[in-house]
Amino acid sequence: MEKNKVTMERLVNHCKNMGIIFPGSEIYGGLANSWDYGPVGVELKNNIKRAWWKAFVQESEHTMGVDAAILMNSKVWEASGHVASFADPLMDCRECKTRHRADKLIENYSKGSVNADAMTNEEMEGYIIAHKIACPVCGKSNFTPIRQFNLMFQTNRGVTQENANIIYLRPETAQGEFVNFNNVQRSLRMKLPFGIGQIGKAFRNEITPGNFTFRTIEFDQMEHQLFCNPKDDAKFYDFYKNRSMEFLTSLGLPAEKLRFKDHEKLAHYAKAACDCEYLFKFGWGEVNGVHNRTNFDLSRHQEFSGKNMEYTDPTTNEKFIPYIVEASYGLDRITLALLDNAYEVETLENGEEREVMRFAPHLAPFKVAVLPLIKKLHADKTHELYRTLAKKFRVIYDETGSIGKRYRRQDAIGTPFCVTVDDETLNNGTVTVRFRDSMEQEVVKLDDLVSFIQTKVED
Amino acid sequence: MEKNKVTMERLVNHCKNMGIIFPGSEIYGGLANSWDYGPVGVELKNNIKRAWWKAFVQESEHTMGVDAAILMNSKVWEASGHVASFADPLMDCRECKTRHRADKLIENYSKGSVNADAMTNEEMEGYIIAHKIACPVCGKSNFTPIRQFNLMFQTNRGVTQENANIIYLRPETAQGEFVNFNNVQRSLRMKLPFGIGQIGKAFRNEITPGNFTFRTIEFDQMEHQLFCNPKDDAKFYDFYKNRSMEFLTSLGLPAEKLRFKDHEKLAHYAKAACDCEYLFKFGWGEVNGVHNRTNFDLSRHQEFSGKNMEYTDPTTNEKFIPYIVEASYGLDRITLALLDNAYEVETLENGEEREVMRFAPHLAPFKVAVLPLIKKLHADKTHELYRTLAKKFRVIYDETGSIGKRYRRQDAIGTPFCVTVDDETLNNGTVTVRFRDSMEQEVVKLDDLVSFIQTKVED
Repeated sequence: MEKNKVTMERLVNHCKNMGIIFPGSEIYGGLANSWDYGPVGVELKNNIKRAWWKAFVQESEHTMGVDAAILMNSKVWEASGHVASFADPLMDCRECKTRHRADKLIENYSKGSVNADAMTNEEMEGYIIAHKIACPVCGKSNFTPIRQFNLMFQTNRGVTQENANIIYLRPETAQGEFVNFNNVQRSLRMKLPFGIGQIGKAFRNEITPGNFTFRTIEFDQMEHQLFCNPKDDAKFYDFYKNRSMEFLTSLGLPAEKLRFKDHEKLAHYAKAACDCEYLFKFGWGEVNGVHNRTNFDLSRHQEFSGKNMEYTDPTTNEKFIPYIVEASYGLDRITLALLDNAYEVETLENGEEREVMRFAPHLAPFKVAVLPLIKKLHADKTHELYRTLAKKFRVIYDETGSIGKRYRRQDAIGTPFCVTVDDETLNNGTVTVRFRDSMEQEVVKLDDLVSFIQTKVED
Repeated sequence: MEKNKVTMERLVNHCKNMGIIFPGSEIYGGLANSWDYGPVGVELKNNIKRAWWKAFVQESEHTMGVDAAILMNSKVWEASGHVASFADPLMDCRECKTRHRADKLIENYSKGSVNADAMTNEEMEGYIIAHKIACPVCGKSNFTPIRQFNLMFQTNRGVTQENANIIYLRPETAQGEFVNFNNVQRSLRMKLPFGIGQIGKAFRNEITPGNFTFRTIEFDQMEHQLFCNPKDDAKFYDFYKNRSMEFLTSLGLPAEKLRFKDHEKLAHYAKAACDCEYLFKFGWGEVNGVHNRTNFDLSRHQEFSGKNMEYTDPTTNEKFIPYIVEASYGLDRITLALLDNAYEVETLENGEEREVMRFAPHLAPFKVAVLPLIKKLHADKTHELYRTLAKKFRVIYDETGSIGKRYRRQDAIGTPFCVTVDDETLNNGTVTVRFRDSMEQEVVKLDDLVSFIQTKVED
């Protein structure tokens, strides 16, 4: 069996054809950097969410979840610094009037060897001129100076479009955890160190092309914010760095395709920060970040809101504003990493091509396919089996085409088990279970089927 | 045991104090009609989501899920009619300059006996003048004529604020299912009738006070859109009406607090429509709607996008644009109904007050509380038990205060089982399980505990 090289383009097409991910608003020509998850993709995404919540909230005795609103009082974004400085460095091409991110021009030109994040605007402008970097659209090199463009989407609350009514679509979920620090601590009587976990949407007005779902204008974040005594920050930073690697590999991402990259230039709020990157078909890309945010966030919220954010240690009576160690996971990027990693195209011994998504069983969108061998004879029993299995698992029914063709379709969406209903089922109460990965088959008693599958799909 | 009358205000306070729901952006004085779900509320909400997905997607052989983007091409909202006519009838008070919804002024004045939805703007203006309805702020009756105010939040895509770049926060999730009709049908080879299910956020620029989380500027919808042959529309409309009642009662809402209300004035797209209402402490309110949307949506998208939305029946070769029967569930409203219904305040025989949230066990935010009888002696074993149980359930640990006090705290957030670890646990491997509803206790072997709880919390 031979494994064939798969391009990013082929993966994108596969996702569209198989109902995994569709271009957003496709019938209207789309909307740049927006995507819709189809029937297969939504199940994968939900399974990742569940795995994250289980690992970071459910199984952690010291973590509580929240689900904060996307639309927040705009003072939140003044305190966080986003209104003043959450901006991209943009330049216009004077020749063809297109707009570009200066940092991306430099990174593309230098093939990633220059880290533009660490440069000032003047340094970036100087580098672009010195290297005569060309406009990717018209090929000339004649750019305006850099202008800062805020990435937050803004809208107006209420019936008039006055400045006083401006609100923003949150550019990160984190502030929802921070502003609720006191609420969570008091209502659940939490003692430090404790965590707040959240899964939710954030929005950024991105203008650069996104590498499929890697960079999108809206995206789900899964975030764990650990509130701790300042003296424990380094310990927890290391802990959550390890935890990231643990979590990502538990999803089936191989350790050799993952690496940490420490930030060279730290954000204004951070004492230490790193990205965890996955080796996508288009190169290394961040899927997760761990940040020691110090007491920046709670101090700023104390300053801007006038509310006390101090915590008093019940044993030592020590008073301090807690430090925050953040572990932030991009749900869409992790989903993309799993698709990237799972998708294989093999040439079988008979020369036939097999497309297969090798998802870990607990993340597979559909756990079981139920297939009547002959529609006329076995469909009723198969529908009955669907109803039994669907109480426990996400199941898919397929009666069209040869069994071999139906196996291929299930391979292509990563269903780990195909169950065929035939005369043996009607006469002897057994079914044939066929495995996605080994393509082997096993006869299983109907009565044992639920537990047979359950033991294999539990994480 | 006596049940005490509970006001809406007390429920709202209880939700804040117990970590169920906090006011949004509270430290900054809030943001009108926005709320954050706390540690208890987020688990309840997630459990309802899961129950809905299971009932409407997982267990339905003919339904597929999607997760479409919130930000869509603005042509979607031209086709849907929202740009032209998704508006509230607003009037200004000429005396105190406050702004009000004409329909709400009439409904409040008539105590619900007049249905303003069925009136034209002129009729509403006439009614308000004829009845000298007073401004709720200043008490005078001197309003401007009605002006239509579009409820969609709008923002700009890209780097310039031009009209061409206007996009909207989706005011309903439904269009995400409609524009993907062909994508889902083709990629999963679906035959009519089939459904598309989705859970996601929608946004409306509501200016009227919201009755806690009943009317909010952002909310989660859980929607099932059934695509069918036009001749089957009435059958499916009835089917999904029944399904609504079935689903809501399966969550523990009593049938006597639920009713259908047929729409008197149908929306432009609808052939038949009804709301399912729950009797909240503040009165009847819609939690779910069932609508026969005819072929309006797909016809409009065909017209505006130029893409063919016809379906060809594979048996009869009949060609038609499918009808859509929509069943739409407000997740936040159902959550509120469950809180409203579950919250009871009892006076026990000893005169003590007990607050209890009587959630159905499969929806309870925390399934089990683990409590060391004496912290010093039993905490280690209790932590160990936490780790075992947390692999299966959402568990909460509490070591503070008397066991009786800890029971009360768990009652107040609806935890169905409290497990106390004591000397018997260390010596004989048994724990005491105490039940929220009966307040009775039972000794259970540690080895049997997971399955003991599992059978009681499965739906």
